[in-house]
Amino acid sequence: MASNHYKTLNEHYPWTANPTVVLAPMRMISTPPLATEVSRAGGFGFLGVGTDVSTFSPMLKEASSILESSLPTSEGVLPIGVGFICWGVDLSVAISVFESAPLKPAAAWLFAPREPKDLISWTEGIRKATNSRTKIWIQVGTVTMALDVVKSCNPDVLVIQGADAGGHGLAQSSSIISLLPECGDALAKEGFGHIPLIAAGGIIDGRGVSAALTLGASAVCMGTRFLAAPETPISNGYKNAVVKASDGGVTTARTTVYDKIRGTIGWPATYNARGVLNQSFWDHGKGMSEEENKRLYEEEMKKGDAGWSDQGRMTTYAGTGVGLVRNTQPAGEIVKEVMRDAKERLKTVGNMF
Amino acid sequence: MASNHYKTLNEHYPWTANPTVVLAPMRMISTPPLATEVSRAGGFGFLGVGTDVSTFSPMLKEASSILESSLPTSEGVLPIGVGFICWGVDLSVAISVFESAPLKPAAAWLFAPREPKDLISWTEGIRKATNSRTKIWIQVGTVTMALDVVKSCNPDVLVIQGADAGGHGLAQSSSIISLLPECGDALAKEGFGHIPLIAAGGIIDGRGVSAALTLGASAVCMGTRFLAAPETPISNGYKNAVVKASDGGVTTARTTVYDKIRGTIGWPATYNARGVLNQSFWDHGKGMSEEENKRLYEEEMKKGDAGWSDQGRMTTYAGTGVGLVRNTQPAGEIVKEVMRDAKERLKTVGNMF
Repeated sequence: MASNHYKTLNEHYPWTANPTVVLAPMRMISTPPLATEVSRAGGFGFLGVGTDVSTFSPMLKEASSILESSLPTSEGVLPIGVGFICWGVDLSVAISVFESAPLKPAAAWLFAPREPKDLISWTEGIRKATNSRTKIWIQVGTVTMALDVVKSCNPDVLVIQGADAGGHGLAQSSSIISLLPECGDALAKEGFGHIPLIAAGGIIDGRGVSAALTLGASAVCMGTRFLAAPETPISNGYKNAVVKASDGGVTTARTTVYDKIRGTIGWPATYNARGVLNQSFWDHGKGMSEEENKRLYEEEMKKGDAGWSDQGRMTTYAGTGVGLVRNTQPAGEIVKEVMRDAKERLKTVGNMF
Repeated sequence: MASNHYKTLNEHYPWTANPTVVLAPMRMISTPPLATEVSRAGGFGFLGVGTDVSTFSPMLKEASSILESSLPTSEGVLPIGVGFICWGVDLSVAISVFESAPLKPAAAWLFAPREPKDLISWTEGIRKATNSRTKIWIQVGTVTMALDVVKSCNPDVLVIQGADAGGHGLAQSSSIISLLPECGDALAKEGFGHIPLIAAGGIIDGRGVSAALTLGASAVCMGTRFLAAPETPISNGYKNAVVKASDGGVTTARTTVYDKIRGTIGWPATYNARGVLNQSFWDHGKGMSEEENKRLYEEEMKKGDAGWSDQGRMTTYAGTGVGLVRNTQPAGEIVKEVMRDAKERLKTVGNMF
């Protein structure tokens, strides 16, 4: 069995509690009201800049204004992270924001570069611009990617995303149940056992968190669980669809259909996204042309919340654990509940043997 | 969070240790030498009758002759289970073997009926033939299936198989990371919280076992981990391919290609199987006809162990955790090591918080 990866995040991120819950940097979803609530509750909020770098500076300013009055900052570091979908972002623009920010984000989460080598420029650029105050987190989805990335970039943290995750990720991967231990072993064998691993994909509550920790994670990332939170800036139609969905293994799928109808194109060919199956998906399966499917999607947008109905066409990105999200709940409560339940779960199960 | 599912298996299966490791009833692989070693080590061995009911009686006799001298039997029950791929088995033949067996198998594992309702005849038939000495285990892969099965059959145990599992399973499902907790909650809500859940899919070592337990499993099932054991009656070519494979999220896939070239046809349309990618898979992807692919497969069989080479065509069914299987190891040692490591892991992680 592998060496232990229980390097908690607290050393570098002193406001975090254990086990740390990380908010996934969801594009257009992980905005300052949501991300700051997660950090204020002892989690690790991430702002989802995604592919739109023009949102970086305003989101950072908004988050700063919220957090400066409520969380201690140390050494010019803002207790929040920022996530980039690298292929869609002009690095030089991002760097200029890092340079000019009075408080640097505690971490930059790098995901989906056009080419693996692009991560080197990202890592070096951000470290230089922030004097390494912004830590580098890199998301991977295979053992090979994990090894390549640690050797080329020496990141501060690796996010290990499994196939159950909602939204974008690798079209092919395993779940964290086998991916996380194999990454842990492979990294330890190559001398990178000191890098904390964050588990992502299918984790919704204290059970998933405790499972991830036993698999070797130092902390966990959650996205789907936060979708129905009041701080999350998505429509009620989307939130209702998340609360209503169940049995995500068969009611969600990994597909590129939703990217196509929404025009969110440019993803490297190895990526797709998991969302709840809807009429766009079914029609695509029946052979409907992309043009017609897109046209119907754009018509559906006019319906507002009703577009997320059972036979609707509005995209509901969510992971396989969507059935475990059963109500709207403030983000801070989610963080605290999940941490408490994970600790209880570990104690209960540990005491059985 | 759901009610607790920590109903260990020991009450009904007194030879088992905790946490119990169950050998998956792999067709043509889980034979008496392997299955009895698992039971003798405190695990739960299953004989893989699969679709060939003519193997049932001889395997049961062989297992009886091994176990009668080494494990105590109680009330006419043999400390081993037997697994059926229901769509391929004549139930009346299976029943006649159950009826005539001097010692009844401790459990019958029912998988992949032609129609869901067939499970009712199977359950009733086996219970009657064995005076309920043979417990009914039913394998499911979705929350809906789990609910349907408990209502129609009231099984003694449910096996919850996630998408990471090797060999046959549902073409669409999530991993156990979200499937197991959601099944647990749904069953508890409907009054079936007393049924023990066995986690299957992607579990290879103590980390996977401890994760499954925190997710709500009473015990775990492993198949891939046992493939390289000396007691396993597969060729060295297959075993070497298992030991060599890594990064199973991308080097294995769920597919029907291997069924087609091997002529193992008849599976319900919702099933396929996970195996290591090889030349048969790549050629299928390039558009090779089924006939030609099958012909090349049959040619490859003449190569013996060499047919499992990197560019070979012999099928290597295995789960996403195949990269965590790194050597040949006796089945009994595997069981004991995994149980010990799981307990240590739970203790280590539990003590951190």
